[in-house]
Amino acid sequence: MTRAGPAPAGPLRERAFHRWLARRLPAVGPLPVGDDAAAVTARHRTLLLSSDVLVEGSHFLPSTAPRRVGAAAVAVNLSDLAAKGGRPLAVLLDLVVPRRSSTAWAGAVVDGAERMAARFGCHVVGGDTKPGRVRTVVGCVLGESSRPDPPPRSGARPGDLLLTTGWVGHGGASRADLDAALDVTPRVREGERLARFAHALIDTSDGIAESTHLLAGASRCRLVLEAERVPLVPSLARPGLSERARWSAAFYGGDYELLAAVPARWAGAALRAAPGGVPVTRVGRVEAGRGAWLEWRSRTVPLPRAGWQPFGDERRRS
Amino acid sequence: MTRAGPAPAGPLRERAFHRWLARRLPAVGPLPVGDDAAAVTARHRTLLLSSDVLVEGSHFLPSTAPRRVGAAAVAVNLSDLAAKGGRPLAVLLDLVVPRRSSTAWAGAVVDGAERMAARFGCHVVGGDTKPGRVRTVVGCVLGESSRPDPPPRSGARPGDLLLTTGWVGHGGASRADLDAALDVTPRVREGERLARFAHALIDTSDGIAESTHLLAGASRCRLVLEAERVPLVPSLARPGLSERARWSAAFYGGDYELLAAVPARWAGAALRAAPGGVPVTRVGRVEAGRGAWLEWRSRTVPLPRAGWQPFGDERRRS
Repeated sequence: MTRAGPAPAGPLRERAFHRWLARRLPAVGPLPVGDDAAAVTARHRTLLLSSDVLVEGSHFLPSTAPRRVGAAAVAVNLSDLAAKGGRPLAVLLDLVVPRRSSTAWAGAVVDGAERMAARFGCHVVGGDTKPGRVRTVVGCVLGESSRPDPPPRSGARPGDLLLTTGWVGHGGASRADLDAALDVTPRVREGERLARFAHALIDTSDGIAESTHLLAGASRCRLVLEAERVPLVPSLARPGLSERARWSAAFYGGDYELLAAVPARWAGAALRAAPGGVPVTRVGRVEAGRGAWLEWRSRTVPLPRAGWQPFGDERRRS
Repeated sequence: MTRAGPAPAGPLRERAFHRWLARRLPAVGPLPVGDDAAAVTARHRTLLLSSDVLVEGSHFLPSTAPRRVGAAAVAVNLSDLAAKGGRPLAVLLDLVVPRRSSTAWAGAVVDGAERMAARFGCHVVGGDTKPGRVRTVVGCVLGESSRPDPPPRSGARPGDLLLTTGWVGHGGASRADLDAALDVTPRVREGERLARFAHALIDTSDGIAESTHLLAGASRCRLVLEAERVPLVPSLARPGLSERARWSAAFYGGDYELLAAVPARWAGAALRAAPGGVPVTRVGRVEAGRGAWLEWRSRTVPLPRAGWQPFGDERRRS
């Protein structure tokens, strides 16, 4: 047995499992196990790998257009790659489909995946298709890092500014609509650009609050999210919505934007939009201290941590 | 729509789906879509990618030791990589586990995967874990090709000799035992070595008969398997077994050996065992003509094609 010992018994809790994985698996690349993407250094080049599983019933519905499922399976991985500043090279797509399932369904998944890949300069190059009771789609993206050391989650330093791409709250605003939540535009070009400046970089797939907590914890700094600076998606910016509804949708819905900690002296350059025209906005700051904080109407309070936890809320149960 | 049109309607048939995929997906690397592994060329280096899905009930049982499942998820992909002469760089592992499933099960899968990866000089560097009703394990291996143009399935030429690594019939001999079929030793070092000589290379994961047919079809040559030369696993070589039982287990069980078409002038060098001591044996020859043939007791007959077809026998139904 290794120094990690066997994994803990009892129902799977995502964070506890990730802590065990980090002990069990050797750190072989420039990024720790559990970052948005895995990094592998081979002959002075850093390659990035990310994979993501979509299961029917949890991440898409029997009625969801299969092309949308395929596109999402690629997009969520491109977002992870973007969070490490990667340039995509290739996509693998694995499908589990019931034995009597139609070829048309699998074909449309591939079609959606290939269209999404092609938008970002790469292609579906392989994968596997197997029979099984529950439709499942696994996307895997290979990319190349623009830096030998991709920006980790642990790099934020006091004095850095927190920047986000695009608009926050897409996932929260469409929470009731599983299909809409699949419409992801990964910030690939923006990530490649931000990685030139960033001390730390992460995507906001579990919500900007969770990403702020993750950066704060990994970097052992105090991160302050300045609520009034956060650029909201139009549907959350409209008046009439309660403050509570607005902020809970904005901070705790899964988005696919990027959150970067950038040294103040480079913030000006980083804030200029990437060629695609997606804005980059200052949303907070990094200070000495610990934890994730929310500044709102001149008050600073601890930022509640209630991001999306697919295996349930482990803090209450464990 | 692309020139491929939509995928055919009706239940999924693996070969028909693969034919559609080959039309739908652009050929971007030095290997065609559908080869054992996908190849991506990036800055003068050829990277290889392979992924494989194992579903509980089809590929392993609820009672199967999870460490064995993890090891197999890596080994089958290392075998695909070996079939293109690749050197493994990294492994991703994706898990689907029921919400109430124990962390110990997932941990043991990772443990088995990491041990198998480490045997071949690489490590599990990432992946994804999601809740779902049916336990599913997806392994993905990234490797580097020793040649800019990995040996394809289509490269066999008249005059080549057919060589196999190791012993044939492991899968057929253990067909009744799903667990035993998971015990795969990928021929990684042997593949890296054979790729230096081979015109064409493939693994025998669907049986040596199916691999012979695939090489013959892709290469548009006549491949003759010389039955009496085929090195059988000890359990099939023993007397008392009917000829029919012996050969059907030998030719149609999934093995994880390699089958190579090597020019006669290099066969001597290729036949010398790799450093690991696994033998390489001449099992046939390539001639002008078409199709896969079986030579047995001085007769040559068409080699029946009845490899493992997970979605059913499509020739009878379509």
